[in-house]
Amino acid sequence: MNILDIIAKKRDKKILTRQEIQYFIDSYVKEEITDYQASALIMAIYINGMTDEEIKDFTLAMAYSGEVLDLSMFGENVVDKHSTGGVGDKITLILMPIIASLGIPVAKMSGRGLGFTGGTIDKLESIPGYETNQSIEKFIKNVENIGISLSCANLNLAPADKKIYALRDTISCVDNIPLIASSIMSKKIASGANKIVLEVTVGSGAFMKTIEKAEELANLMIRIGNLVGKETICVLTNMNEPIGYSIGNTLEVIEVVEALRGYMEHDVRDIVLELGSQMIKLSGNGEDIEVNKNKILQNINNGRAYNKFIELVSNQGGDIQFIQNTEKLKLAKYKIPVCSEKEGYVNSINVEKLGKISCYLGAGRLKKEDEIDNEVGIIVKKKVGDKINLNEDFAYVYANNLKLGNKAVEQIKECYNITKEKTKKLKSILGIIK
Amino acid sequence: MNILDIIAKKRDKKILTRQEIQYFIDSYVKEEITDYQASALIMAIYINGMTDEEIKDFTLAMAYSGEVLDLSMFGENVVDKHSTGGVGDKITLILMPIIASLGIPVAKMSGRGLGFTGGTIDKLESIPGYETNQSIEKFIKNVENIGISLSCANLNLAPADKKIYALRDTISCVDNIPLIASSIMSKKIASGANKIVLEVTVGSGAFMKTIEKAEELANLMIRIGNLVGKETICVLTNMNEPIGYSIGNTLEVIEVVEALRGYMEHDVRDIVLELGSQMIKLSGNGEDIEVNKNKILQNINNGRAYNKFIELVSNQGGDIQFIQNTEKLKLAKYKIPVCSEKEGYVNSINVEKLGKISCYLGAGRLKKEDEIDNEVGIIVKKKVGDKINLNEDFAYVYANNLKLGNKAVEQIKECYNITKEKTKKLKSILGIIK
Repeated sequence: MNILDIIAKKRDKKILTRQEIQYFIDSYVKEEITDYQASALIMAIYINGMTDEEIKDFTLAMAYSGEVLDLSMFGENVVDKHSTGGVGDKITLILMPIIASLGIPVAKMSGRGLGFTGGTIDKLESIPGYETNQSIEKFIKNVENIGISLSCANLNLAPADKKIYALRDTISCVDNIPLIASSIMSKKIASGANKIVLEVTVGSGAFMKTIEKAEELANLMIRIGNLVGKETICVLTNMNEPIGYSIGNTLEVIEVVEALRGYMEHDVRDIVLELGSQMIKLSGNGEDIEVNKNKILQNINNGRAYNKFIELVSNQGGDIQFIQNTEKLKLAKYKIPVCSEKEGYVNSINVEKLGKISCYLGAGRLKKEDEIDNEVGIIVKKKVGDKINLNEDFAYVYANNLKLGNKAVEQIKECYNITKEKTKKLKSILGIIK
Repeated sequence: MNILDIIAKKRDKKILTRQEIQYFIDSYVKEEITDYQASALIMAIYINGMTDEEIKDFTLAMAYSGEVLDLSMFGENVVDKHSTGGVGDKITLILMPIIASLGIPVAKMSGRGLGFTGGTIDKLESIPGYETNQSIEKFIKNVENIGISLSCANLNLAPADKKIYALRDTISCVDNIPLIASSIMSKKIASGANKIVLEVTVGSGAFMKTIEKAEELANLMIRIGNLVGKETICVLTNMNEPIGYSIGNTLEVIEVVEALRGYMEHDVRDIVLELGSQMIKLSGNGEDIEVNKNKILQNINNGRAYNKFIELVSNQGGDIQFIQNTEKLKLAKYKIPVCSEKEGYVNSINVEKLGKISCYLGAGRLKKEDEIDNEVGIIVKKKVGDKINLNEDFAYVYANNLKLGNKAVEQIKECYNITKEKTKKLKSILGIIK
């Protein structure tokens, strides 16, 4: 087998065999295939596509290209959750303690973020003392002891996906549904999941800009799930406004704590209930979605979910004082109000731009090596459908650099489209595909 | 301008502007664009194609990516000749002294070969003393003094083409007509030609396997020529048998000398007359092709062409004794006959395989760094349409390694398809496109 023949086949729109895909993935990880050869093949795949069978083989080859987390000690229905990403997305941090509080084991390996704000791991590191780096033994032990661990993947999980993802980024091959689907699914398989709940975000702040594209991606991931024997459900969520009211790592941790205490924004509540009830179902702990939603609400109201979060933080070395009293968490030096220059109703929000602003403030990374500033970010008090009065402070910028902060204030004004006519609140859940 | 947008445009089958193509070529030569980014773009070009305008811009950007030879001191009609390559192709060495003997300046930069046998420069180096490496001043001076110089391009001509050609070779993007056409034309433009005669070879020993593909390539090169203001004529020649009777560097030099003395194989004669008469026409030295052919024959018969070759060799430091008496040229240790095991007529010859055999004997290079053995090669006594008797020696292998030589003998037998039925000689000239 040789890479020239494999490239030529896909260049000519032919179907690659499992062996050919395996050979490419293995040899690329071993650096026996160069980046420029991989690049030619990825471009040919982008343009000429792959069949479901090829995508399945591609996914499995990437999933098994490195270590694979074995979670079989927690049963046959280990559920994982993944989101295709968005602005203000703190759902994992709220949802996982809830699930664990229901007695369902949560062994979640998360990553750091690239993009608008940090990932789940970056957010957890806003809590003083919280240990995200754990040995795999400690990670498993934690789940056995308290039913939950949220850690950084310091295993060599799906290295082929990491290499190919980084390459795609530099050759304009990011926004391709088969490549996105196989990337997500390979990571989930390598993380040991048997059942997968996927949040596919849709809108101006998401990869998938239209509902059609989101459905295409969701359907493909479900087909891959079926082909590899990992039951998969996709929940399509609205990314035409930020999730909740906070953007930025420490700010989002504060919102997480409030949510677990029962004070949830309507969109956060809708998404948590939908994803959570599907996870409960897939884990084999309840067929009825409405009943499952009630279980979630119950464990928020009775404090069990909040207590599980406290237990998680404490167990991983975090200082729970900062959770019990979030005012102790350090925020940025400057809190600058964004004051409205007109009166009206929020018609739309440029979420992508809002994400970029928070990134430039320091809340996110542009490159892997960038340092994140957990203290900065944005609070949005108004979302689509809300009324804003003249001179009303409708958002706040948290900045450690006054000049950057003032610039952000002006830019946030540009993100809001305010109209005279009344507007409607957005629906958070746009569809469920299984 | 940035490479990600350029790749994305071609990926989406859009048309690149002159500025975008120029930016890519310049930045790639300056190594500001990586090989893997170039690779993605080249694959997108391969699959999605280019318009004539894009191909012209691509050609010019490559042509002017390094030094460009200025031959304007030799007038406005400097003609160059190029062949898309074949087995036993020694036409340049025969044709150029003929053209120079007619008073038409020949300032030809040639390359070394990659593939079946050496290039023109490798063949010339079979002649003891011949200096292929000359300064550009010396090269021009030689043409001024004796009307001809055949040298190695030690200028930095079309470096973008060199880089892209090498890349294409490693990513299965060689056999693409727009990329082949722009590569050839960029080299010719950089070599200072104003008028171009192209020999497009067709058949089992050529890049273009069918007449349709060859016509497509020819027509495209003529269109590029028109767009860049360099009149271009293409002669389609048959590559379903080797050109002449010799394959291998020294063996071919011997055939060249004999041809210039008037002993030409019919196919060599046909190709020399056709290409030569077109060159004379393009150089402004004779409108009538038949008259031009007669001029060529005349200068072979009266010895002027041969004398010009002697003058060329002598002027570049070569020892003319070896030309005057080619038996002095050193050939390989072993000359092994290939003896026919059956009687019949040659129906077809696997020329590509014949080329590979000569390459494995040491006559050609697989990699740029490989050393060439000028002494080895193959003599074919029979071509398509010829009768072969039982036990007749129809070819000879010249080898410095007996084992390789004996293996070549067996393989050559496999290259010949011999049938009971009479077969016809092949036509050498398959078409002229202007």
